[in-house]
Amino acid sequence: MNIAVLGTGDVGRTMATALIKQGHTVMMGSRTADNPAARAWAESQGESARQGTFDDAAAFADLVFNCTAGMHSLAVIDSINKDHLNGKVLVDVANPLDFSNGFPPRLTVCNDDSLGEQIQRVLPDVRVVKAFNTLANAMMVEPARLEGPHQLLVSGNDADAKEKVREIAASFGWQHEQWLDLGGIEQARGTEMYLALWVRLYNALQTPEFNLILARSRA
Amino acid sequence: MNIAVLGTGDVGRTMATALIKQGHTVMMGSRTADNPAARAWAESQGESARQGTFDDAAAFADLVFNCTAGMHSLAVIDSINKDHLNGKVLVDVANPLDFSNGFPPRLTVCNDDSLGEQIQRVLPDVRVVKAFNTLANAMMVEPARLEGPHQLLVSGNDADAKEKVREIAASFGWQHEQWLDLGGIEQARGTEMYLALWVRLYNALQTPEFNLILARSRA
Repeated sequence: MNIAVLGTGDVGRTMATALIKQGHTVMMGSRTADNPAARAWAESQGESARQGTFDDAAAFADLVFNCTAGMHSLAVIDSINKDHLNGKVLVDVANPLDFSNGFPPRLTVCNDDSLGEQIQRVLPDVRVVKAFNTLANAMMVEPARLEGPHQLLVSGNDADAKEKVREIAASFGWQHEQWLDLGGIEQARGTEMYLALWVRLYNALQTPEFNLILARSRA
Repeated sequence: MNIAVLGTGDVGRTMATALIKQGHTVMMGSRTADNPAARAWAESQGESARQGTFDDAAAFADLVFNCTAGMHSLAVIDSINKDHLNGKVLVDVANPLDFSNGFPPRLTVCNDDSLGEQIQRVLPDVRVVKAFNTLANAMMVEPARLEGPHQLLVSGNDADAKEKVREIAASFGWQHEQWLDLGGIEQARGTEMYLALWVRLYNALQTPEFNLILARSRA
């Protein structure tokens, strides 16, 4: 598949590299064409890798991963010609974290709204799936790094779009039992607000290498 | 120990009954003396159980559990003579959930503040420990209902107060490895905001009988 990865940070590079490994052709999008990080990534990955502007990447792709910093995601989307996104699936990996007052960050949107919903509202003809935002990037694409049936929490309004994302997740090694569909995109409020706990668990554990397993009743 | 349980709902009754079982003397506090739910509870529990107003309960106790609905907790605390609380440990089990627009609830405070912090601010001479608020009441007092080393997430400014709460938790069966101290009371933001995910997990799983285990890296 032709896939766009918006964002050149750790999450974008990790996701884009994993998608290349799975045989996809990936264009990394950034604010400017020929962004040094995007160019270095594309050169390191061979002929299945490209780079361009956010709009170039969206136009190229069948499916789009939003791996930009959540605070900037709406501006990024605003810079893209909507005709290059409409009808496609957008996987929103971002969290609306504001680190401007240091650690732990606050959320720029929460409680009565979420970034996932905001993106779905500005892109009514795009099928937004919120996924992968509840764990650090290395685990997104290699769930077997962690022990046990830890969960991938997902939400979105379109069942077919979620199924497409499930297939990509499965290619990374996510098992059927690990996938937990919370419902429509408004459930992104739950997975984004969990970040307020995630950052504190990260601080207490002193590692981002963790995720949630749901303990259930005995027998 | 003489313990006050503020609140006559499911959480209060479950906690109070479990504390009686562990040999404590418990006064259930409510808005009015002789509240029917509190009286019925006290009569069912024998001579170690009492009931009275919130203020009566605080005056009686060495340690106080706040099991009131989080939306009302500050008003409840305001109704108590501060001399009856100062110097004591207050375990804040409440979550600031507002169900007035149905399910899922919103939080009445989050992101830049938390109920735990609000309580600590109005009671500067009380040692507030946020605990037990991340799981349903049956599991609070009987962690062995769930399989696996699921976590009890705790925060508070006073190490001795947290140790007192740890001893009570241990009496309910919480093991050392299950106790996870996130730091000062401001970390309550994380455990309270997790409720936005908790209610959605509850909805997806169709049971409140779950809690979090932290998946960690393979050796």
